[in-house]
Amino acid sequence: MNWLAQVPSAFREYVSEYEAFHSQVTFQAEPEGLYEPIRYIMRLGGKRIRPLLFLMACDAVGGRWREHLSQAYALELFHNFTLVHDDIMDGASLRRGKPTVHEKFGLNAGILSGDAMVFYCQIFLTEGLASVLLPRSIALFNQTAIRIIEGQQMDMDFENQGEVKADQYLKMIEYKTSVLLGCALQLGALTGGATAETEEALYQAGIRLGLAFQIRDDILDAFGDERFGKVRGGDIIQNKKTLLYILASENASPDDRKILSELRQESDLKKKVQETLEIFERSGALKMAQDKAESLYQQAVSIIHQADITDTGRARLLELFRLVHERNI
Amino acid sequence: MNWLAQVPSAFREYVSEYEAFHSQVTFQAEPEGLYEPIRYIMRLGGKRIRPLLFLMACDAVGGRWREHLSQAYALELFHNFTLVHDDIMDGASLRRGKPTVHEKFGLNAGILSGDAMVFYCQIFLTEGLASVLLPRSIALFNQTAIRIIEGQQMDMDFENQGEVKADQYLKMIEYKTSVLLGCALQLGALTGGATAETEEALYQAGIRLGLAFQIRDDILDAFGDERFGKVRGGDIIQNKKTLLYILASENASPDDRKILSELRQESDLKKKVQETLEIFERSGALKMAQDKAESLYQQAVSIIHQADITDTGRARLLELFRLVHERNI
Repeated sequence: MNWLAQVPSAFREYVSEYEAFHSQVTFQAEPEGLYEPIRYIMRLGGKRIRPLLFLMACDAVGGRWREHLSQAYALELFHNFTLVHDDIMDGASLRRGKPTVHEKFGLNAGILSGDAMVFYCQIFLTEGLASVLLPRSIALFNQTAIRIIEGQQMDMDFENQGEVKADQYLKMIEYKTSVLLGCALQLGALTGGATAETEEALYQAGIRLGLAFQIRDDILDAFGDERFGKVRGGDIIQNKKTLLYILASENASPDDRKILSELRQESDLKKKVQETLEIFERSGALKMAQDKAESLYQQAVSIIHQADITDTGRARLLELFRLVHERNI
Repeated sequence: MNWLAQVPSAFREYVSEYEAFHSQVTFQAEPEGLYEPIRYIMRLGGKRIRPLLFLMACDAVGGRWREHLSQAYALELFHNFTLVHDDIMDGASLRRGKPTVHEKFGLNAGILSGDAMVFYCQIFLTEGLASVLLPRSIALFNQTAIRIIEGQQMDMDFENQGEVKADQYLKMIEYKTSVLLGCALQLGALTGGATAETEEALYQAGIRLGLAFQIRDDILDAFGDERFGKVRGGDIIQNKKTLLYILASENASPDDRKILSELRQESDLKKKVQETLEIFERSGALKMAQDKAESLYQQAVSIIHQADITDTGRARLLELFRLVHERNI
């Protein structure tokens, strides 16, 4: 894997142990129509951010992280399940540069393989976990999953909803993206035997990291970034109600607000993107979104600074947070 | 509910306690697009066979069944989840005489609401269960779910597969239908504190009850039964590879085998059904299927007779088995 070469040496042990576990989970051969799609998606790669957050949190509270690779895998498997089903609902044909599962294997395979992944998640989650840790681990994991599903529903609802407010949007991305990062960190703390206070702190840090990440994702999508080969304005062309769009709608001058609304019907896509971006800047929406992302990231960092974890663990988590925030992982 | 009035008085307490629990689970209001489909399917009724098997098994081993209504609900919720997703995959438009979830609310609602149900299953399954019971309950429940999904995959595979053998078919219906009845009984025994031997016995009884039920379902579908308002030959018209069809293919004379195969293309549906049924009878397939169902049912009964459970519990379970087998519930 390409990104593995760039991983800081302090992370290499987590990554290599995790990858060793990940690659030996092959599922059974039959029925092939059920298991081949799972093998396919689980081999497509990924940055393993959730397993890393989990293992590093577990280590940072003094837990035996090497005994919890199965829980790390459960998080990655769950994340991939959401990709499989969301890609169906969003009608996406590409994932990580390859055909999506339903595109390659058909709708039914996408639905049913995703379903199987969910039940395997539960098995990996509980594998080898002390009985005393089970009730809270299961509750945390499944409540998180329900939030994520609610977030996906909100995201779909927004498409058919007239006006979306900034706080609704932030709640949606918190549910859809951030809670799983929070869950990964909290679950790591929980399995590592941390106090309830440390668990909660790590959860809150994960939420803020995820929110900052998602807001920056919206900004990068709009304004592009050559480093990531992103085309400028993908969300704008699709008329997606991103935070930038919502903030611009709320804060632009009456004239700009009218133009912004009219640009949704603009057929000259270059003009559409260019003029929308100008309003994002002129209205102050870009600055507000950047400030929001930066502030949330700083809150996440601050929580980690104050958390009751080992100094090595703290340094590593801060390094991982920085890499995630700067998109260097 | 109509069938409640006909329930034997010995069952009424289980049923009324269960229904009281079931009807107070309303899920949250928002997002409505996610939860309304769940409320819809969970209010469509159903015979509660899985909750009943679970509660009666728990009681029959001396367990406190009233404390495990949440686990009974988890089984019913899981069963309904499979209906929601299977109806999408099978392209079914009606369920219990009403529009299926995806028909009424759309494909995405069917997928996502089904997904949410799965995670709620885990929460209801583990709710209030002693920590010591959790690992095995979770393993049993989730391994069962995976088998059921494998069964659905096999069922879909059979449609595109040239020849299906009787033992493949029996494995498919064991996975798709029977393991959940076995699981309901075993989980009841497990939560009720039974020995491993009793757990296993009840599981095996459930498997046989389910197999017998499914085989009789195939027979009823083919030959009809006015009591249930079933149209004769639905599976024959759809060219489904039922046990009757497989046994007839294996056992008919060469001439009949040729006719049976040609009848698949027959456009006169009345002729198609009538002549196929005649071959089912003439080849001995009907008799073999009837004998198989009866033998499996008797095995289930025999296991219950020998199981280490209370006499009242035994009598009630035998009564429930009989009602299920005779389709009087």
